[in-house]
Amino acid sequence: MTLSKNRIKYIHSLELKKNRKKEKVFLAEGHKLVGELLNEMPCRLLAATAEWLSTNRNRFSVTEIYEVTEEELTRASLQKTPQQVLAVFEQREEEMDSSVINQSLCLALDDVQDPGNLGTIIRLADWFGIEHIFCSPNTVDVYSPKVVQASMGAIARVHVHYTSLPELISSLKEIPVYGTFLDGGNMYSQPLSKNGLIVMGNEGNGISKEVEKLVNRKLYIPNYPSERPTSESLNVAIATAIVCAEFRRQVSLP
Amino acid sequence: MTLSKNRIKYIHSLELKKNRKKEKVFLAEGHKLVGELLNEMPCRLLAATAEWLSTNRNRFSVTEIYEVTEEELTRASLQKTPQQVLAVFEQREEEMDSSVINQSLCLALDDVQDPGNLGTIIRLADWFGIEHIFCSPNTVDVYSPKVVQASMGAIARVHVHYTSLPELISSLKEIPVYGTFLDGGNMYSQPLSKNGLIVMGNEGNGISKEVEKLVNRKLYIPNYPSERPTSESLNVAIATAIVCAEFRRQVSLP
Repeated sequence: MTLSKNRIKYIHSLELKKNRKKEKVFLAEGHKLVGELLNEMPCRLLAATAEWLSTNRNRFSVTEIYEVTEEELTRASLQKTPQQVLAVFEQREEEMDSSVINQSLCLALDDVQDPGNLGTIIRLADWFGIEHIFCSPNTVDVYSPKVVQASMGAIARVHVHYTSLPELISSLKEIPVYGTFLDGGNMYSQPLSKNGLIVMGNEGNGISKEVEKLVNRKLYIPNYPSERPTSESLNVAIATAIVCAEFRRQVSLP
Repeated sequence: MTLSKNRIKYIHSLELKKNRKKEKVFLAEGHKLVGELLNEMPCRLLAATAEWLSTNRNRFSVTEIYEVTEEELTRASLQKTPQQVLAVFEQREEEMDSSVINQSLCLALDDVQDPGNLGTIIRLADWFGIEHIFCSPNTVDVYSPKVVQASMGAIARVHVHYTSLPELISSLKEIPVYGTFLDGGNMYSQPLSKNGLIVMGNEGNGISKEVEKLVNRKLYIPNYPSERPTSESLNVAIATAIVCAEFRRQVSLP
């Protein structure tokens, strides 16, 4: 089947959140990412080069498959340099259950705006066995193409929920709620728990005042050397990674 | 002074490495970044709104200053949403001296391609007091506008050198050369040194075979839980951050 102008228009329309929401789908591109998602999520449409299809045809069942030339793929793609295949997957319906925070370590993101940051955080959450991320309503959409690409397939395994963080945290009882602050306690001198919530803030403004009030364990990632006057800060995905690694290191100590 | 078409063309030309190299300059945008660089690097040209100039005029001396409208700034900018000011700074002349690797902890990047990753690595190096980064010749250019923006001013403090990594490492004697590998030793069970080189690899291919042979301490960042079969990996800037944090934690232990 060849890819009609209409289908290309449909694919491009998925760059916008309102269209993704209406159709309950999202776009993923490239051999590695699409290959991984095909094992884990229902696929609605797939467009690929003859070469890709010949080696991958047996790996999946999709109703709407298009064999395309490199040129057609470039027209359909949102990427500068499309790679062999793109596909439209169904969004997952997430059921929110805050009791997972009692039992396991979870992340909360307070208005993270950059899609690369969210995708990278989903990917590192997967590495560290963090299965749930709670996002404030103004956090960037998890199904934005740039988030999907940066997540590298982890989007199929990590559950991302959108909800009011103040309401979520207020509903929790006696659960540790961590956040990183310049006036927090040295992260390496604190006992870190196996469960609870780690809140990370917006790229420019950090954690909002309303959420900050509900954080009951303030952490600081030590810079080095510590006496140096610093104007520096860390990117939010970088800070998330360093904090998650330390939680898992402490829990894994013999 | 108003910004002529010719000056706008000059600013846009700095998106390309060959033009930056010829002029020995680079472009930076936004109040926070430009404000920080003005304290640390010679500035050749600055274009800003009347509002920005009125509050910042006494902070710097630049020969070529343009007061621009928001509209003019948008035309000159490479950003989607320009913020008050853009400026052209002089590139720093870096003198390579590999003896710093004897005395301090340094990073080496083996063909890191994504400008956001390089900028983020420069920023986190600054946080962890790592003053020198050695890049393979095919690593993305440090003065690429996206690298500069992601570095958030750290580009003024961290020295970035381009050189053949196999030649650099071969010239070092009895110095620890670290790298992260899936078959490396658990990073938390290794003694980590105050000096030496940490090598990080390309986004898709990791560390090249030629450089891998010269790594004498292979590290692994433990995933969690460790028994889980994983298809995951970590983004290179994320992996760099987790490794650097652990080096500095160990060195800071009482």
